Amino acid sequence: MFKLTVAFDGTAYHGWQGQRSGRGVQNHLEQALSRVFASAPKVISSSRTDAGVHARALVVHVAVPDQEFQMPVRHLPLAINAGLPETIRVMAAARVPANFHARFDAVAKQYRYLIWNRPVMDPLLLGRAWHVPQSLDLAAMRVAARELIGCHDFTAFTSNRGGILGNPCRTVTRCECRHASGLLTFVIEGDGFLYKMCRAMVGTLVEVGRGRIPATAIPELLASRDRRMAGANAPAHGLILWLVRYRRDRRLSRSNTGEI
Amino acid sequence: MFKLTVAFDGTAYHGWQGQRSGRGVQNHLEQALSRVFASAPKVISSSRTDAGVHARALVVHVAVPDQEFQMPVRHLPLAINAGLPETIRVMAAARVPANFHARFDAVAKQYRYLIWNRPVMDPLLLGRAWHVPQSLDLAAMRVAARELIGCHDFTAFTSNRGGILGNPCRTVTRCECRHASGLLTFVIEGDGFLYKMCRAMVGTLVEVGRGRIPATAIPELLASRDRRMAGANAPAHGLILWLVRYRRDRRLSRSNTGEI
Repeated sequence: MFKLTVAFDGTAYHGWQGQRSGRGVQNHLEQALSRVFASAPKVISSSRTDAGVHARALVVHVAVPDQEFQMPVRHLPLAINAGLPETIRVMAAARVPANFHARFDAVAKQYRYLIWNRPVMDPLLLGRAWHVPQSLDLAAMRVAARELIGCHDFTAFTSNRGGILGNPCRTVTRCECRHASGLLTFVIEGDGFLYKMCRAMVGTLVEVGRGRIPATAIPELLASRDRRMAGANAPAHGLILWLVRYRRDRRLSRSNTGEI
Repeated sequence: MFKLTVAFDGTAYHGWQGQRSGRGVQNHLEQALSRVFASAPKVISSSRTDAGVHARALVVHVAVPDQEFQMPVRHLPLAINAGLPETIRVMAAARVPANFHARFDAVAKQYRYLIWNRPVMDPLLLGRAWHVPQSLDLAAMRVAARELIGCHDFTAFTSNRGGILGNPCRTVTRCECRHASGLLTFVIEGDGFLYKMCRAMVGTLVEVGRGRIPATAIPELLASRDRRMAGANAPAHGLILWLVRYRRDRRLSRSNTGEI
């Protein structure tokens, strides 16, 4: 069993899973793995990113029969990358115990969202940042961001049309809005995220910045459990899956995935 | 007369001037200006960037007859940008005195150069950073970088085949090598740069980092005035023209362009 850390520019892909199109990042990764391993192993991912979303360090696990996995693990990224488009890269590989699970063992995920907040879009940030030309009330956005931290029912921040399966509560541990020379960087970390939850959070914070939603309305908005109360989803191309955290003691993590 | 600050992703262009191809950034900008102003004004640039080099804030001046320039200057970027591809943008416009000159009045230019220094290239930095997979001796590179600061004859760091026209001495005021999570950022500022000088400086610093040129050899290398002694030019796509400085008192700047 091994663990791969995968980065990709999501611009050209139909998200992580491109079931119908075959143009998902997962399809490319599994094709590349089938060139390295005769058993053509499937990958299990920490996260399923939407079309257009980028990743800096998505984590997957891959089960490969021992007799096929003879090369030193440090050579594995190079071998797999040889079969991948240059916009998808295995950044690192490590051997992990046979019961490691990229999704179930993840204890936290961090996303970052970039907004270019000047009147004219920076051409060097095309496809990487959402262009919001209007001036934003950063102080209000930061007040609202703090209200999103904690354990909440995030039903108002998810786009799952078929209804939420299971528990709609998630614990957000960080929700920061950094600002430097026109670039806003949202750092959002939590134990897990509902479908399109990050993009709904950023979209709502921008509505607060525009003065259309009061910063103090966030608790009420969460309590409403009504998707129509929150702001529209921020576009996919500003979002990056930044990192996935695992507990050092994996056995503990299995039984306590809610804690960080 | 007005001054425009221009940003572009140099990937698709044949440099600032694409005389023969017509695919220079300047060609696009002059075409866009001809849609706004009947006189189809020419632009004079602070700098001529090579093919593939990017710009965050290149400065140009444009002479437009007063009777043609009636709109408020704050509307000018929007009007020009409507005629530009999205990878070229006028970020700002300002009225300047009729004797302002984007090149002659510039007192300093800052370039930045990005290197991704991990074994596997980051797909989110393709076209933005040079991939140097080998580990580099950052301490040695910083010693060498300091040796490049000051007023020197940079003949060993320029690719001008036809010979250097005029004074080959330039004053480099900053030459720093920052490092954060695998990304090296070189900040290079000076009163002016010879042809491909920045890329030769970065290429040489990387050779120092690889141990092929000793950090202490920089003074000797400068004194040699021999291009073959320095490292190969770093690739264009890692270089960004970051900013151009002008003296607040323009009249002073004309007579003392060497001082900052």
